[in-house]
Amino acid sequence: MIHSLSLSDVLAEHARSRPQTTAVVDGDVRLTYPELDDRVTRLASALAGRGVGAGDRVLWLGQNAHAVLELLLACSRLGAVFCPANWRQSADELRFVLHDLAPSLVVWEPSDTVAALAGPGWVRAGADYEGLVAGGPVREFAQVADTEPVLALYTAAFAGRPNAALLSSAALVAHATSLLVVRQMEPGFTFLNNGPLFHVGTMMFCLATLQIGGTNVFTPAFDPEEVCRLVDAEKVTQAFLFGPMIDAVVKANAGGKYDLSSLRFVAASDEWNAMITVDDSPWCRSRMGGYGQTEVGGMLTFLGLAEGGAGLAGRPSPLAQVRIMGPDDAELPAGEVGEICARGKTLFSGYFARPDLNAEKLRNGWHHTGDLGRREPDGTITFIGPKLRMIKSGAENVYPAEVERALKTHPAVADAAVIGVPDPDWHQAVKAVVVLRQGAAATPAELVEHVKGQVASYKKPREVVFADEIPKRGFTPDYDALDAAHGGGNYPGASPGGSPGPA
Amino acid sequence: MIHSLSLSDVLAEHARSRPQTTAVVDGDVRLTYPELDDRVTRLASALAGRGVGAGDRVLWLGQNAHAVLELLLACSRLGAVFCPANWRQSADELRFVLHDLAPSLVVWEPSDTVAALAGPGWVRAGADYEGLVAGGPVREFAQVADTEPVLALYTAAFAGRPNAALLSSAALVAHATSLLVVRQMEPGFTFLNNGPLFHVGTMMFCLATLQIGGTNVFTPAFDPEEVCRLVDAEKVTQAFLFGPMIDAVVKANAGGKYDLSSLRFVAASDEWNAMITVDDSPWCRSRMGGYGQTEVGGMLTFLGLAEGGAGLAGRPSPLAQVRIMGPDDAELPAGEVGEICARGKTLFSGYFARPDLNAEKLRNGWHHTGDLGRREPDGTITFIGPKLRMIKSGAENVYPAEVERALKTHPAVADAAVIGVPDPDWHQAVKAVVVLRQGAAATPAELVEHVKGQVASYKKPREVVFADEIPKRGFTPDYDALDAAHGGGNYPGASPGGSPGPA
Repeated sequence: MIHSLSLSDVLAEHARSRPQTTAVVDGDVRLTYPELDDRVTRLASALAGRGVGAGDRVLWLGQNAHAVLELLLACSRLGAVFCPANWRQSADELRFVLHDLAPSLVVWEPSDTVAALAGPGWVRAGADYEGLVAGGPVREFAQVADTEPVLALYTAAFAGRPNAALLSSAALVAHATSLLVVRQMEPGFTFLNNGPLFHVGTMMFCLATLQIGGTNVFTPAFDPEEVCRLVDAEKVTQAFLFGPMIDAVVKANAGGKYDLSSLRFVAASDEWNAMITVDDSPWCRSRMGGYGQTEVGGMLTFLGLAEGGAGLAGRPSPLAQVRIMGPDDAELPAGEVGEICARGKTLFSGYFARPDLNAEKLRNGWHHTGDLGRREPDGTITFIGPKLRMIKSGAENVYPAEVERALKTHPAVADAAVIGVPDPDWHQAVKAVVVLRQGAAATPAELVEHVKGQVASYKKPREVVFADEIPKRGFTPDYDALDAAHGGGNYPGASPGGSPGPA
Repeated sequence: MIHSLSLSDVLAEHARSRPQTTAVVDGDVRLTYPELDDRVTRLASALAGRGVGAGDRVLWLGQNAHAVLELLLACSRLGAVFCPANWRQSADELRFVLHDLAPSLVVWEPSDTVAALAGPGWVRAGADYEGLVAGGPVREFAQVADTEPVLALYTAAFAGRPNAALLSSAALVAHATSLLVVRQMEPGFTFLNNGPLFHVGTMMFCLATLQIGGTNVFTPAFDPEEVCRLVDAEKVTQAFLFGPMIDAVVKANAGGKYDLSSLRFVAASDEWNAMITVDDSPWCRSRMGGYGQTEVGGMLTFLGLAEGGAGLAGRPSPLAQVRIMGPDDAELPAGEVGEICARGKTLFSGYFARPDLNAEKLRNGWHHTGDLGRREPDGTITFIGPKLRMIKSGAENVYPAEVERALKTHPAVADAAVIGVPDPDWHQAVKAVVVLRQGAAATPAELVEHVKGQVASYKKPREVVFADEIPKRGFTPDYDALDAAHGGGNYPGASPGGSPGPA
């Protein structure tokens, strides 16, 4: 256990190394690291008193609050698992989470949907939660191995219902460190948690800020004016902002009421650049982000590690390995599209209570992301799209997402989906369903020719049909509906004419 | 094994992610990452062919060369342990290493001392080594857990003979990542290995450069003119330089023959600052370094994480914990001097073949560094000195290094050592042996008064005697000789009047 470093250990060190540093700001609440450490110890004691033991789950249903970080750290101290879930889900979705996770304790903020589900042992955020913390005695806790899961985040609704990805302290600490490297975070870093903490995108920066001993500022949800006020008041270094959120902040501060110069962030509009300090770290310097998913702790590849590279997702984290695999789990050469597979320090520990899915996703020592990508000749990675289907035409594998991506680069195409239809000679043939832009025109032959210039010839559609819209399941095409409407079938692994579920 | 990331894995990823990047420069040799990966595979095959198996040791006796990195990586691929040892040791010292490490293979560069020891199976660097690499077939290797030791560095000659600290891939990767954070290393970083690679100070930057996919330039040893030439030719980012080495480089480049502006490094003299680019990373911005030792992978604390802090050694690495422990292994409060103890991702795996020493050093789940330190009120750490002795006076513990440090701040004191002498009332009394500066004068009473202002009163010497010099064992006082000359004895744990060995 001499090599173990849990989130609880990180906090315990900061309580000693940074006794005067503000760890947490949330409304009127300001906690130094020793104060946070003391509250986390009391909370862990109180949770134990409520029967929460090693491996048990604690669920948070509410907006952003410092209680989210405290509950995560208390679970780490105790060896339990903390899950911040989306409180705005429907009653049906919330019931699924409650049944699936079977939490030993729920801490919740009142909302109509959540209130209707609340059980007798649930603890209300605010006064009840404070009572819990105040009543917990200070005691010693045995060391918990950092390989134990500590955070559960619902994601990956492969079969219509989400799965809770389990992340260990070791994975979270490793991922946080990768952000310290790429974002060049230093002591004094102050992060405004204005994105939802049930999503890895905000959580990962919250934990990186903890790792470097910085300050986490919490606000319930994104409000442009409140973001401006908090950046000014707390001298925030970075917030969870992109695209339209940045525009909204610029608009809210149009009169220059707030000083946003402490923000060190990506360049955007001229007005934005004049308000903030444009940052020169790899994370901010060119394009932000890369490729990631909850199952890899956040980011698997970083654009900031591949400036000028060909791949649209950059290069792997210094703490992870990436392989592009064919359907037989053999590595594909550069230039070929396959499944993005990963291994390394930041990876999750499987999904909670999904032994079969875990065995499949983690087969042969690699995590199979369920996403398609390509290694470019310069070694960088391009993310293609989700690997929902594979078409088998002749001996060749064709992934719909790759052909759809090529179709959508045609100026006349508004949307597109690709399916496989049974073919007597080739097992399946590629068929495209295309939605044209209003007022635009294109013939099937033109579109096939356009695609041929971008992908291998055997991947081009044999047939193109036009439709008014593509049916969707979330953000991706509803392939079952498309198969039913357009004659799809004969997918590899399926009985002839049948349609396999999403991979 | 999905979370494992060995040095071999890091190389395998770079071979894919950075096919065009130069990994290694050494004289006329230039290797891209795929070329280095190929050579490492062949070398690992060849080592296996020579009977080197998992856990076996491979010894390097020679100057800096790219072969050092190749042998380390090949051992990682194979699961073996690589040891680069100081080839300039005496024949007696080298014989000890050969007997202690019992290497399966030795690769050596001719020198008189080493040549006299060479056995029949030894491989000479140069043509013989190249033959070994060329003859190794390309094959697959099973994944090696990153928790396995891969590097052995001799250090810590507690009892007169050194011990080989074993570092795993996981520890080396974690330490490298901590340097990426504090030094803000980015892709393109080029490190000139001009310090000895058998020392962790150079090795740690070599491995951090590998970790970020940068370029390692090797030169046999420090030569100021050659450093200038290589910095200019290879656009080196950082070299192993400090103090007098920097002055020598400035002198060698006095005429401005070489362009050193690619160096991004610490500020020094005006001439130096004008030649290089003064770097703004935490590592370079204020004072370089911190506290470290081979057993923690290099650095345990960083000055760059504690700008303006009171402690002379900065704050702990983001991947480690530090505790200041009393003799009973209980944590001491801030302000008190005790042993610096550590836990975390960068720590070593014990010494090779020293089960008793390992049990003692790693007792109670913490590595006991054998060094004294103090947590300052602001949470930063001060390194006091090696914990060679402890004096017991009354119920109190007095560490000689702490009192010596206080004595040496007196302007009249050139050197000082502190021992414990038997005392009928207090078990031991503190006695100081002081060397005055030439022409300076001070009375014992003055010196005692001076010390009282800096440390707790019970630590002040009861007696001060003057001497012409302090006998030394390496860099530290020879306490056995001092005890013999000045009546020391009665140390805790020793039989009355006896003297314990160094802790």
